[in-house]
Amino acid sequence: MNPISRYPVPELKDLAPDLRERILAVQEKAGFVPNVFLALAHRPEEFRAFFAYHDALMEKPGGLSKAEREMIVVATSGANQCQYCVVAHGAILRVRAKNALIADQVAVNYRKADLSARQHAMLEFALKVSQRSAEIGEGDIERLRAHGFSEEEVWDIAGISAFFALSNRMANFLNLRPNDEFYLMGRIKP
Amino acid sequence: MNPISRYPVPELKDLAPDLRERILAVQEKAGFVPNVFLALAHRPEEFRAFFAYHDALMEKPGGLSKAEREMIVVATSGANQCQYCVVAHGAILRVRAKNALIADQVAVNYRKADLSARQHAMLEFALKVSQRSAEIGEGDIERLRAHGFSEEEVWDIAGISAFFALSNRMANFLNLRPNDEFYLMGRIKP
Amino acid sequence: MNPISRYPVPELKDLAPDLRERILAVQEKAGFVPNVFLALAHRPEEFRAFFAYHDALMEKPGGLSKAEREMIVVATSGANQCQYCVVAHGAILRVRAKNALIADQVAVNYRKADLSARQHAMLEFALKVSQRSAEIGEGDIERLRAHGFSEEEVWDIAGISAFFALSNRMANFLNLRPNDEFYLMGRIKP
Amino acid sequence: MNPISRYPVPELKDLAPDLRERILAVQEKAGFVPNVFLALAHRPEEFRAFFAYHDALMEKPGGLSKAEREMIVVATSGANQCQYCVVAHGAILRVRAKNALIADQVAVNYRKADLSARQHAMLEFALKVSQRSAEIGEGDIERLRAHGFSEEEVWDIAGISAFFALSNRMANFLNLRPNDEFYLMGRIKP
Amino acid sequence: MNPISRYPVPELKDLAPDLRERILAVQEKAGFVPNVFLALAHRPEEFRAFFAYHDALMEKPGGLSKAEREMIVVATSGANQCQYCVVAHGAILRVRAKNALIADQVAVNYRKADLSARQHAMLEFALKVSQRSAEIGEGDIERLRAHGFSEEEVWDIAGISAFFALSNRMANFLNLRPNDEFYLMGRIKP
Amino acid sequence: MNPISRYPVPELKDLAPDLRERILAVQEKAGFVPNVFLALAHRPEEFRAFFAYHDALMEKPGGLSKAEREMIVVATSGANQCQYCVVAHGAILRVRAKNALIADQVAVNYRKADLSARQHAMLEFALKVSQRSAEIGEGDIERLRAHGFSEEEVWDIAGISAFFALSNRMANFLNLRPNDEFYLMGRIKP
Repeated sequence: MNPISRYPVPELKDLAPDLRERILAVQEKAGFVPNVFLALAHRPEEFRAFFAYHDALMEKPGGLSKAEREMIVVATSGANQCQYCVVAHGAILRVRAKNALIADQVAVNYRKADLSARQHAMLEFALKVSQRSAEIGEGDIERLRAHGFSEEEVWDIAGISAFFALSNRMANFLNLRPNDEFYLMGRIKP
Repeated sequence: MNPISRYPVPELKDLAPDLRERILAVQEKAGFVPNVFLALAHRPEEFRAFFAYHDALMEKPGGLSKAEREMIVVATSGANQCQYCVVAHGAILRVRAKNALIADQVAVNYRKADLSARQHAMLEFALKVSQRSAEIGEGDIERLRAHGFSEEEVWDIAGISAFFALSNRMANFLNLRPNDEFYLMGRIKP
Repeated sequence: MNPISRYPVPELKDLAPDLRERILAVQEKAGFVPNVFLALAHRPEEFRAFFAYHDALMEKPGGLSKAEREMIVVATSGANQCQYCVVAHGAILRVRAKNALIADQVAVNYRKADLSARQHAMLEFALKVSQRSAEIGEGDIERLRAHGFSEEEVWDIAGISAFFALSNRMANFLNLRPNDEFYLMGRIKP
Repeated sequence: MNPISRYPVPELKDLAPDLRERILAVQEKAGFVPNVFLALAHRPEEFRAFFAYHDALMEKPGGLSKAEREMIVVATSGANQCQYCVVAHGAILRVRAKNALIADQVAVNYRKADLSARQHAMLEFALKVSQRSAEIGEGDIERLRAHGFSEEEVWDIAGISAFFALSNRMANFLNLRPNDEFYLMGRIKP
Repeated sequence: MNPISRYPVPELKDLAPDLRERILAVQEKAGFVPNVFLALAHRPEEFRAFFAYHDALMEKPGGLSKAEREMIVVATSGANQCQYCVVAHGAILRVRAKNALIADQVAVNYRKADLSARQHAMLEFALKVSQRSAEIGEGDIERLRAHGFSEEEVWDIAGISAFFALSNRMANFLNLRPNDEFYLMGRIKP
Repeated sequence: MNPISRYPVPELKDLAPDLRERILAVQEKAGFVPNVFLALAHRPEEFRAFFAYHDALMEKPGGLSKAEREMIVVATSGANQCQYCVVAHGAILRVRAKNALIADQVAVNYRKADLSARQHAMLEFALKVSQRSAEIGEGDIERLRAHGFSEEEVWDIAGISAFFALSNRMANFLNLRPNDEFYLMGRIKP
């Protein structure tokens, strides 16, 4: 079995209080500590900025639903072949969408997934931001507006896709290992 | 929910006896009829040739283990973004490898999966056959030999990768929908 | 001169009767044994399935003309850089289209070939199946319908393109050598 | 002339005190406000996280020289065709390297730039993180070690490349316009 | 500092009179000898043909403005990562367009540059000729006509893009070094 | 049947004497006028430069054999999907190599052609110049030296590949039609 990260993983007791607090909070909520918290704790400043950025996009009230945000993560992480992000955020997507099938569908090919036309347009744009951002033009934005997305929601789609461009690269570099717990999460109706 | 296939799906009672027999046999074994059997039954001649080819490679005694063959299917189907093949053969891989995690790992990025060096080399070659077959050279074969693969096992790797190049394209064309049953198969230890 | 195949080629006398019969039949018709028959005879089960699949698509009555089917083979095999398929099926295309120029044109760039708008649309779709099947959508099918293709003809185009995705990969893997006879076939008016 | 950003740019007086303070500080140092500060101020939470991440990587004491960090930014931003990042960080690179030519060289093709073998290896890895992170393997890390990079410096290279993967996508999405001042900065010896 | 060229550079006194004359003329006009003249002088016949072709396209009276021609050079040379052509023709573009910013903008991403819709269409087509010429179709020409380009101007765009496809490859092969003088040319208003 | 060129083709009697002379000379030698002469005659200055460049590389005494030069043309034109160049230079390659099979082999996939190791290395480099010239490095040149190529022969390989990068783009743009005569040339032993 591969290790959690290419770099040493600090012990909880050696962490700065704000990192430890954050980690204990997520552990209480999820029942385990997702490995991304342990791996990034090797660099406390980057840890703080990473999760501040993450929360600004993923926990922000209003706009895209939580499930839609996770769809963007899963679709773009699939395109970037990021194992950690596909497995971990696939789990969160299943939970948030209350749908046991959607994550695997979106990870492999969103065009074949059980999505609305609006969600299909959202992921088409997210993937353009992820893979060919130099080609983004006014026409792309207009297509989103035609599906009812507000200007701020358009920024949200782009922002999430861009943030996980960073996240996917770090996970791929670190050989970040998804926790075993993620694989089954949200697959069985309670 | 999307339909099983872009084309009409025949009813079991209208099928030729050999197709019906094959379908009933798989239903008995799996507990359900995988949609690929129903979708291809629209074309009985192609159905027969497809499964004859499939069995010649996937059910052949000796050589690669059953789990290794499924790894090739899952890794190359991931690269081709074939939803049906990743989900259905991911399930079979979990069952055959008795490993609840391996299929998702291999589907996203085999380089980060819990594999032996031999399996890593096998999938590297399978993906070259799948994505850049014009560039195959003697050096590729030698690398496989160095990992202990026999000449016949090398053909098996190439053959499975090539057969699923066909299969992935048909599934993508047909919008072939994976059965809901596959998603959970092999994820829970009995 | 390179050998016919990377693998041993069995002698006719050592083959199972059905393989020998098939090979003698093609030899009588063509005047020589195309090397694909000899190379695949190394694996009798795969030989049988391969040619059953081939015949189901290429010899099926009705639908696309025989020349159109060969155009699909030549265009997609060119994109996959499969020497055997371009040379051998280029010869068959010249014979079936009674056109000495069309095969070389289609192999290099079908957009510049002497084709009808309908044939151009057919090859555009065949190449999408061959190279980017994950992106196939309803719009692609509609474009074919607009050119008068029936639903079953659309399947035929996709099926031929998908089958030669398999065939091209096997030929590239096997270093399958085109028979010298193919190069001149159909180039000289009788 | 194109506007600074696709989104409204807030006025300084309307900003939260910490954003205003940061912007005034950079204005005092540079003599103008780089447009990225104004464009991201539309989203204060993302502004804070973005610059916290930026500073953690780019202002961190020790390790890679400041000029080397900017080389990574310029080379990867060129590959992502990010106009703002190439122009703005090209200026900073010229200033930090005290070299009027290096930024244009690195932006177009680092392989042809006046670099040491160590810097060449650094940029080769940075571009792999930027463009093909799924393929990163132990061999890549070993090549860096052979050039004398420490484990922490390897993380720095990856981190900077990954952070600007985010930054490039946001700038491309926002149509972020480089300030005119950047174009000439560092080109004339004082 | 890297040398001018991978090959020996002849001395002016050893050159054939017509080459010497051409070089002295450009030196008088520019104040220095651009390195492409010295590097190609190693092959006098190719030198003569190269500059005859260059002049036929770039010095031809009428049609595209001189600045527009240089935009084509800079945009396509950026796509081909040709350091010499981006730096040297970037300088000429700044001079001819009397615009200190346009060259860097066009080199990185013409879509984000301060261009007219007509110039945007011109560069879109030039890049198609440069990167995907096999896909050029009647629709591409019609889009240019809709922007008011004459048939001869369309040829000019294609011709310049095609000529610099040659030029970029030779410069990349030769490691052709841009003269230091180019970097600052046209950046400061006189 | 498609026309010779997208642009008007001048009549022989309306051409400048030097163009007419060149065309009559090639007609006398080949028995017909290759269409590239007629299509480029629309632009006399470019015609003169084009053929001067062509002759400097392709008719130069010594160095690479005439057949080897045509192999470079055919292999790179195949990669650029240039119908005119593959068909016309394929014919010349058959004649110069006195080999009826080699052109089709090289056009589709040089790796599978009946070539010496030296010729294989030559085409590998020619294709790098053609498709990825920004990545050329000292290692590429060293591999050619190891196969016995002189420095001037290396330039010849690069020069021919670069010149046909231009030629292929012009032919693709012009829809340049290969003369019917080329298709059969060199296929039948006299």
